[in-house]
Amino acid sequence: MTIRVSIDASGGDYGILVTIEAGIKALSVFQDLYLYFVGDESSIRTELDKHPSNTLSSRYAIIHASEVVSMNESPAIALRKKKDSSMRVAINLVKTLEADACISAGNTGALMAISRFVLKTIKGIDRPAIMGRMPTMTGHTHMLDLGANVDSKPKALVEFATMGSIAVKHTENITAPTIGLLNIGEEDMKGSEKIKKTAELLKTSNLNYVGFVEGDDIYKGTVDLIVCDGFEGNIALKASEGVASMMGYYLKQAFTRNLLTKLIALIATPVLKDFKSSLNSGKYNGASLLGLRGIVVKSHGSANVDSFLVAITEAYVEAHAKISDKISLQISKELEHNE
Amino acid sequence: MTIRVSIDASGGDYGILVTIEAGIKALSVFQDLYLYFVGDESSIRTELDKHPSNTLSSRYAIIHASEVVSMNESPAIALRKKKDSSMRVAINLVKTLEADACISAGNTGALMAISRFVLKTIKGIDRPAIMGRMPTMTGHTHMLDLGANVDSKPKALVEFATMGSIAVKHTENITAPTIGLLNIGEEDMKGSEKIKKTAELLKTSNLNYVGFVEGDDIYKGTVDLIVCDGFEGNIALKASEGVASMMGYYLKQAFTRNLLTKLIALIATPVLKDFKSSLNSGKYNGASLLGLRGIVVKSHGSANVDSFLVAITEAYVEAHAKISDKISLQISKELEHNE
Repeated sequence: MTIRVSIDASGGDYGILVTIEAGIKALSVFQDLYLYFVGDESSIRTELDKHPSNTLSSRYAIIHASEVVSMNESPAIALRKKKDSSMRVAINLVKTLEADACISAGNTGALMAISRFVLKTIKGIDRPAIMGRMPTMTGHTHMLDLGANVDSKPKALVEFATMGSIAVKHTENITAPTIGLLNIGEEDMKGSEKIKKTAELLKTSNLNYVGFVEGDDIYKGTVDLIVCDGFEGNIALKASEGVASMMGYYLKQAFTRNLLTKLIALIATPVLKDFKSSLNSGKYNGASLLGLRGIVVKSHGSANVDSFLVAITEAYVEAHAKISDKISLQISKELEHNE
Repeated sequence: MTIRVSIDASGGDYGILVTIEAGIKALSVFQDLYLYFVGDESSIRTELDKHPSNTLSSRYAIIHASEVVSMNESPAIALRKKKDSSMRVAINLVKTLEADACISAGNTGALMAISRFVLKTIKGIDRPAIMGRMPTMTGHTHMLDLGANVDSKPKALVEFATMGSIAVKHTENITAPTIGLLNIGEEDMKGSEKIKKTAELLKTSNLNYVGFVEGDDIYKGTVDLIVCDGFEGNIALKASEGVASMMGYYLKQAFTRNLLTKLIALIATPVLKDFKSSLNSGKYNGASLLGLRGIVVKSHGSANVDSFLVAITEAYVEAHAKISDKISLQISKELEHNE
């Protein structure tokens, strides 16, 4: 079975400079992969010419799109006015079943809005949730929602857990992913009313729910999947990015304070590189929009080639595992059961 | 005017081993400081004997308390059963006006419960909020609530802003502290309904409200004061601690991988020390319980002598500035105005 992935080639901070090379790399890694490069045809062709790949050219197609959704564009405008954007055309290919998954490094809000409009959500799901991988001391974990949904009700949080559990199970080969609910204390009595109610629902579900986790558990790798409302999820993610930037800033400061420290930095270069690579967020690129009738993966806007390749891999693996169909099946079973 | 601070000497992970030495140091730094060391009298005396301080002995008193609240004790039990705990007796001294402020490194939940029971909250405030200092790339900022209040209503969030603004103004000498509301996007349309409502209230207030901030703004130092519900505040704080631990772990890993990297670590020791000191969370020790009829400062449980000294300094500065009275006055003015 060939896995067909449509790439919003013009999306992201670097557009085709990154997406084309990453796509070519992906084709050489996955022999059963077929790609649609969606964007300005002549620019894509020029970029492809830089990467001679005679044996690969039968495994991709260029789909022209005359517009681009910019990174700061209002999602509503992108949705209503840019019907021929590379993002929209790439998503259309999933809708028409020409592609098994779509990937974009473009504007997150626009990707959410257009995916939801074009693909629609699974019956029983109102808005898709964003699941991302987070580095931990022992490897990585998964967390959703990272910002697509605010004011989520307990029932919605349980749906996040269901969808995330299926995705982690099939993309990571974990039989029953352990699930933690993000809270501000591990005791049953702590937390908001909404979280207590959600915990009750999770306890009676078929999911492998293990209990409350706290903010620091994300990076300890306590569980395979952390469930939270998009408000807290996004704040935790952004605060984490903020601390990491600050620590990087102070580390650089310490090593560039004077001539001696600069010399020490030179000596320590391999160690610092090793440190950086263990924290390389690019290794965890590729967030999944779960709950759609189709697979859509969001790459970080500033992804480089290697990191965009990681996100293409995520789309490829999800398409292979038919994540969207599996989630749809499970949610519809639960709806029937509750009717 | 002498500033009298009561110290829960037995509180925290290290108890009198840390609190007494820090107290003695504080007395030599602040000439107008008087201390109450509250805890087991004979243990305190033995510890004090290790720090001969003939000239200082007129500036402190030992107040015996027969019990200690343990770090994992239920706040309800601590409140109901341990009426002669060092924590409770230290707070009682603020109630009886024998002390101008109290400081404890003990169990946060118990400190909240006992402070609230003994001192009561300011009229119009239901529960105190916890304000802490956070390191930034440019210095430090303040954030509240860090976990005392969940499901806070917009009105309560505005009270946090009022209390925090007064505290920052008078302890940091900033005429009109800039205030940001923690949200998941900077645009007006983003965020939960509660946050949008709160923003409307803050815009019409007399506070120096500048708008929404995101999680990464905490560490950029975008504003002087960040306001949020205790649920998000605690998650942001814990997630940040988690990232910092993980980065520290990977940095150590990189430097201890083999003999060569260990040698490099040796050479880089002064730089790594410099880096650690710039991030030293002990410099920001001392969270304020705002909204009480009295000043209560919470030290981190694992604080060392220097870091506990920072927290004593916070209590001293707040007592000097009569933070609690100033907050009470402002809140009562606003209550009258709204009646």
